[in-house]
Amino acid sequence: MILDKNIIAGHNEKELAKHQQQFNFLSEQTGQAAAILEKLKAFQVAIPSWALGTGGTRFGRFAGAGEPATLEQKIEDVGLLHALNQSSGAISLHIPWDIPTNATAIKELAAQHGLQFDAMNSNTFQDQPNQAHSYKFGSLQHTDKAVRKQAIEHNIEVINHGVNLGSKSLTVWLSDGSSFPGQLNFRKAFQRTLESLQEIYAALPADWKIFVEYKAFEPNFYSMTVGDWGQSLLFANKLGDKAYTLVDLGHHLPNANIEQIVALLLNEGKLGGFHFNDSKYGDDDLTVGSINPYQLFLIFNELVEGLDAKGLNHATDLGWMIDASHNIKDPLEDLLQSVEAIQVAYAQSLLVDRAALEAAQGNNDVALAQEILQQAYRTDVRPLVAEARLQLGGALSPIKLFREGKVRAALIGERGEKSVATGL
Amino acid sequence: MILDKNIIAGHNEKELAKHQQQFNFLSEQTGQAAAILEKLKAFQVAIPSWALGTGGTRFGRFAGAGEPATLEQKIEDVGLLHALNQSSGAISLHIPWDIPTNATAIKELAAQHGLQFDAMNSNTFQDQPNQAHSYKFGSLQHTDKAVRKQAIEHNIEVINHGVNLGSKSLTVWLSDGSSFPGQLNFRKAFQRTLESLQEIYAALPADWKIFVEYKAFEPNFYSMTVGDWGQSLLFANKLGDKAYTLVDLGHHLPNANIEQIVALLLNEGKLGGFHFNDSKYGDDDLTVGSINPYQLFLIFNELVEGLDAKGLNHATDLGWMIDASHNIKDPLEDLLQSVEAIQVAYAQSLLVDRAALEAAQGNNDVALAQEILQQAYRTDVRPLVAEARLQLGGALSPIKLFREGKVRAALIGERGEKSVATGL
Amino acid sequence: MILDKNIIAGHNEKELAKHQQQFNFLSEQTGQAAAILEKLKAFQVAIPSWALGTGGTRFGRFAGAGEPATLEQKIEDVGLLHALNQSSGAISLHIPWDIPTNATAIKELAAQHGLQFDAMNSNTFQDQPNQAHSYKFGSLQHTDKAVRKQAIEHNIEVINHGVNLGSKSLTVWLSDGSSFPGQLNFRKAFQRTLESLQEIYAALPADWKIFVEYKAFEPNFYSMTVGDWGQSLLFANKLGDKAYTLVDLGHHLPNANIEQIVALLLNEGKLGGFHFNDSKYGDDDLTVGSINPYQLFLIFNELVEGLDAKGLNHATDLGWMIDASHNIKDPLEDLLQSVEAIQVAYAQSLLVDRAALEAAQGNNDVALAQEILQQAYRTDVRPLVAEARLQLGGALSPIKLFREGKVRAALIGERGEKSVATGL
Amino acid sequence: MILDKNIIAGHNEKELAKHQQQFNFLSEQTGQAAAILEKLKAFQVAIPSWALGTGGTRFGRFAGAGEPATLEQKIEDVGLLHALNQSSGAISLHIPWDIPTNATAIKELAAQHGLQFDAMNSNTFQDQPNQAHSYKFGSLQHTDKAVRKQAIEHNIEVINHGVNLGSKSLTVWLSDGSSFPGQLNFRKAFQRTLESLQEIYAALPADWKIFVEYKAFEPNFYSMTVGDWGQSLLFANKLGDKAYTLVDLGHHLPNANIEQIVALLLNEGKLGGFHFNDSKYGDDDLTVGSINPYQLFLIFNELVEGLDAKGLNHATDLGWMIDASHNIKDPLEDLLQSVEAIQVAYAQSLLVDRAALEAAQGNNDVALAQEILQQAYRTDVRPLVAEARLQLGGALSPIKLFREGKVRAALIGERGEKSVATGL
Repeated sequence: MILDKNIIAGHNEKELAKHQQQFNFLSEQTGQAAAILEKLKAFQVAIPSWALGTGGTRFGRFAGAGEPATLEQKIEDVGLLHALNQSSGAISLHIPWDIPTNATAIKELAAQHGLQFDAMNSNTFQDQPNQAHSYKFGSLQHTDKAVRKQAIEHNIEVINHGVNLGSKSLTVWLSDGSSFPGQLNFRKAFQRTLESLQEIYAALPADWKIFVEYKAFEPNFYSMTVGDWGQSLLFANKLGDKAYTLVDLGHHLPNANIEQIVALLLNEGKLGGFHFNDSKYGDDDLTVGSINPYQLFLIFNELVEGLDAKGLNHATDLGWMIDASHNIKDPLEDLLQSVEAIQVAYAQSLLVDRAALEAAQGNNDVALAQEILQQAYRTDVRPLVAEARLQLGGALSPIKLFREGKVRAALIGERGEKSVATGL
Repeated sequence: MILDKNIIAGHNEKELAKHQQQFNFLSEQTGQAAAILEKLKAFQVAIPSWALGTGGTRFGRFAGAGEPATLEQKIEDVGLLHALNQSSGAISLHIPWDIPTNATAIKELAAQHGLQFDAMNSNTFQDQPNQAHSYKFGSLQHTDKAVRKQAIEHNIEVINHGVNLGSKSLTVWLSDGSSFPGQLNFRKAFQRTLESLQEIYAALPADWKIFVEYKAFEPNFYSMTVGDWGQSLLFANKLGDKAYTLVDLGHHLPNANIEQIVALLLNEGKLGGFHFNDSKYGDDDLTVGSINPYQLFLIFNELVEGLDAKGLNHATDLGWMIDASHNIKDPLEDLLQSVEAIQVAYAQSLLVDRAALEAAQGNNDVALAQEILQQAYRTDVRPLVAEARLQLGGALSPIKLFREGKVRAALIGERGEKSVATGL
Repeated sequence: MILDKNIIAGHNEKELAKHQQQFNFLSEQTGQAAAILEKLKAFQVAIPSWALGTGGTRFGRFAGAGEPATLEQKIEDVGLLHALNQSSGAISLHIPWDIPTNATAIKELAAQHGLQFDAMNSNTFQDQPNQAHSYKFGSLQHTDKAVRKQAIEHNIEVINHGVNLGSKSLTVWLSDGSSFPGQLNFRKAFQRTLESLQEIYAALPADWKIFVEYKAFEPNFYSMTVGDWGQSLLFANKLGDKAYTLVDLGHHLPNANIEQIVALLLNEGKLGGFHFNDSKYGDDDLTVGSINPYQLFLIFNELVEGLDAKGLNHATDLGWMIDASHNIKDPLEDLLQSVEAIQVAYAQSLLVDRAALEAAQGNNDVALAQEILQQAYRTDVRPLVAEARLQLGGALSPIKLFREGKVRAALIGERGEKSVATGL
Repeated sequence: MILDKNIIAGHNEKELAKHQQQFNFLSEQTGQAAAILEKLKAFQVAIPSWALGTGGTRFGRFAGAGEPATLEQKIEDVGLLHALNQSSGAISLHIPWDIPTNATAIKELAAQHGLQFDAMNSNTFQDQPNQAHSYKFGSLQHTDKAVRKQAIEHNIEVINHGVNLGSKSLTVWLSDGSSFPGQLNFRKAFQRTLESLQEIYAALPADWKIFVEYKAFEPNFYSMTVGDWGQSLLFANKLGDKAYTLVDLGHHLPNANIEQIVALLLNEGKLGGFHFNDSKYGDDDLTVGSINPYQLFLIFNELVEGLDAKGLNHATDLGWMIDASHNIKDPLEDLLQSVEAIQVAYAQSLLVDRAALEAAQGNNDVALAQEILQQAYRTDVRPLVAEARLQLGGALSPIKLFREGKVRAALIGERGEKSVATGL
């Protein structure tokens, strides 16, 4: 299913008058709409292939309907999102869930939808049928060299798939760790993991990056071998220039100041990218911005400030991806909400009066610094985000159109009630 | 498989000399071994049927081998545990995983193993094949009366199964809640849940108890409709005299003082029982006592003090059950460790010099109160626990015997490598 | 110092054109400005006397200048706030810091500033010079009856002061608890505290309320005797109809769902009032809305829904108070920011489309429910709040006027650099 | 006051028979008492000068009596502790609280008590009378170069005092950070702090170490500029070979796995030392081992394993210090409990069967690894610790002797009821 441009046009026509009024008001108020619009239009958020189906917990999974069962259908789904918001122009694949049997055809299909291939993801946290060795006790950290070798080779295979598709990065998230005191020798586990990563690193093409993702807990419940940004940074520094830390917003201990972590990693030249989501308790994988949108804004505030200070490109120098689980919402609606939340936070952070903030910081004028941030945050920037979509050919109200256009019903019609996506 | 008594006897013979030396020393040191032994011997911990197989997380499950695939085999497994430690004399069933098609035969089988039927557990957190209504958005809280009715009827069915088996209680754990702000009207969800519970309560036999279990989060990640002890107590009080709160050690927010909760619930006459496990981050469902054994001791310290103050029977007036998930250990070994940890904490708490503690508390002698608790806690009470097992006919070193006796290998021989238990 | 009305008028004149444009736009967009304005205008937030000076931590205190050193000066400060925002029309006193030696004169002074006397606060967490008994080991929970008696009498004295001033409620916050396992018998401490509260309750005038405040930790670091909402509710229920639970936003364990607690307390008819602040780690006492403004909105969303459902008056049926510590901001600026944040959240919650939300909840349309909440939250309601101030005679931009009017400098001129307020 | 050796001898004589019986039993059981004893005897824990008086919270301080008011009296107090346990042979000073006006005399006094001077501590978290610049907005991070210069010079002054006393290390704990979003530019604050530390580092004698302590929160409640081990390690690595990370057990986010952090820092060659205490919620500064003694054991388990693997000396290659606050216990009793808890954990960790553990880890035998750890942990090693004291000339039961000997009463007699120590 490809969304007809006329449908979008028709939708926009109905919404246009109200939008124009709102956008004009906002433009007048802010006086900098044009510059922000250009940045918003350049900003794309990758969609993970595994977020297109219903997620679940260990207690159960309540499947949706019309989910994409093949890689082609997943690309189609991301194509739909991108047609609606023009900001989801990349897909991130997970091997072995998304092995492209015909890479050329897959690339062509993606191109038809205007999509690129973002970071490739390996999977050594689950056993696959007919796999020689089990990852029950870890993969790259495993005490048994044969298991490590299997996991290393899997990662190299993932790189190779990515090369064929035009991807430029590998994200390594390890569930490796321990669930009980005494289970693991932390030092040796670190060392074995490092050596395994070094072998993978050696297989990385010259223009690729490797992202070392960290996570505080789950599925191991005592220690994680890449458990926080400090550990990830140790690995990235020991690996070399192509290695970076990847921040998943849900992978922290309670109350962590993620925006400070982001600022410091940027400062060290080692921030690689993001997995966006939101959470209240742990790696809850909720819709971006659904629990604490101010924190999201504060993170973007650091990103904009830091990227500019380093002379980096907002749109291209970091990897931007959603990583959420859609247990009780339609995955496509949820992803539209997530992308919008990211764009809202990005637009708000672009509105921050940097010069005034810097001056307030220099004067330790704490109340004024807060006023400056909240002036940007409390501004209703949704018309800016909508205008960016409009200018790119997307829909003014993506979710509204998704519903009015009965997109899910059409997908169910094509794929059936029982079509289930791979993933968690 | 039934463990031959001679095997146990042979094992004990080898261990006896060393044990006697340790036990005699401890008896001399404490001077109150006999009284504690009687209490330890009377104390039984129920084993949940779903803890006999390998658990998993949403990221995967690494199955073991020789797991019990039928209710009969689960009873057999608990029978093995009980033969080894003589302290696991009850099994707790989960419907629909454990529907007894022939209750009489199941009762007989259990009796052969010396087992009773502890609390029955209902399951409205997962959909079953051919179920009319989905629990995707809750069960007893659901906005749709038909869904609530289905869930109520399921609970009544569970009670009926329990009546046939001689159980005397129903544990209701609800995953009901919400994952996003706005999803639920908290007040109405509470009210609907209360009305549903009232219908279940009305179906409860006169000599039964209903345990309302609470949980802070997971699988819902924004709110849980029975989210903490305060909410559970509200429900229990509104239901009536047969309703109690059940405490699962892993179901709290970070840093919660569980022992205080326990003491207050006891004081209100509304503490119903326990689900024992341990955890570091959330409902990690780790082996009891594997992360913070001192907390376990402090909980037992409140239990012993409070039960005695209320004139209640340690062994029979509360429900004692393990609720853990065995992702990377042999479930039977894990359960042996858990039961031992509970017995150790219980024995330590029995050793506390109550009169001295009361006096220290009365004098606000904080340092002395700590000395008194730690005097009991630091005492190595394992010989007491082993002696209790010995006197009851169990093994001095259950895990050692489990391993030397190659019990798991025998079970695999009987059931096969691929035999998988129901559960999470 | 009393702020000249002409100064405010002059300030508003300069800001008016821009404000009118923003307010008109918002009125058109929302279509319900008038009704919301009336509610905003009726809504008053009490200022605690102890928040008018610089706060500190155990590591130190960095005093400001020109702080109010007397009760009269504190009333003057709140009068200044109220003149600026017309929403701070009440002051909450803390005894013994604010003993009114001449109640009639104090009442008159407050009336001149348009202020009422909100809840009275007792202090049994610190020892005062010449106090017979120490609260080192608690007050209402103390094992020594003489200490409890002293604390009870102090509370009754606080009530008497309040009666003289026209206050109608007493807030009891207890630091009582324990810092070490074993220090306290939880059950007995609960019982002693209850009996002490009952004596205080008996001294309460017929038209008074008593608020039982809870706190998870600090200054006791193992247990707090009124530690969570469940415990507070137990006390309130046992005390009687005049007893209520008071919620301080910073007094919870990490990740607590405060909005659900609020909804349930309202449902039980036992929510008494609020201490507003914000926090990231514990009882950080930061400016309201400075860390997680969405949570504040969600709390108000429950309040508006619940108060309306119960037929209660938003402005008068609950106690609204700020309780924050101003370590590094000017206290008056900080309080202006806090009041504004509360009004913004209140206005946003009034904007929520209740009928649509109820329908979405009924349909389990989770994505739509989120859209409805965020539609209200993302709306920039500041012009509504400013308009409410304008209509009441306050300043369009209180902080701006505070700074341009050099109010602090004037206060320093009057009181001196070294004038220090009582408080933490 | 110096404790007469005869008093200790008399005390030991009464306790000896029972002790011998216990020690002999333990020796037989473990078979390795002699080797452990030697290590225990070599192991000394430094006492911080500020822990000798009653601590407090921001809510108040309940002073004790007979506290040491001078540096000489503080040395006397540590001397008393050391006389009792022979394991507190060092004192750690805090400047400006403990400025030695006559270093030679102070060294002599310390030597009389058998004490060395452990790490020196600077204080840039509080303003001192007559200080030119305030630390309200930080010290080494401050935006104003003059403030940074003042803080740097203070640290250099502290080094100089330390040189005079024979200390060999400087601990820098910074309260620097921010309490509100926007207040600080994280990158610049890091950079300024680094440059300040570099100036201090340049002033460090060749044989000195500098310890960079981290803390997650408090007294700043939004960000800390040295907030976690990762940040501390960044600073230490950028500073050079003499810079190390210092771990304070209470300075972490909830649920942090401290033992893993310790193992990794040791692995990086950057673990400098410890501040021991215990906590439930934050930096509660409770008695060591009073809340979670198993965690303390697990930390020592990593230390012993890691130090041995690195060929380091347990007693001398890391800095061992208590850092606790004694709000409601007699500080000297509390410190005796803390030292004992550390020794117990150390002894338990020395009992761990390393070869068996390594084998179990190699085999992923998780249950066995747990058994091995708990075998050591559950052993009652107190007789070993007591024997170490006995052999060194200390008391078998230090607290008992402290009480029976009426030491506090004697100190009050000497110093008076109102004598108050400096500190928090």
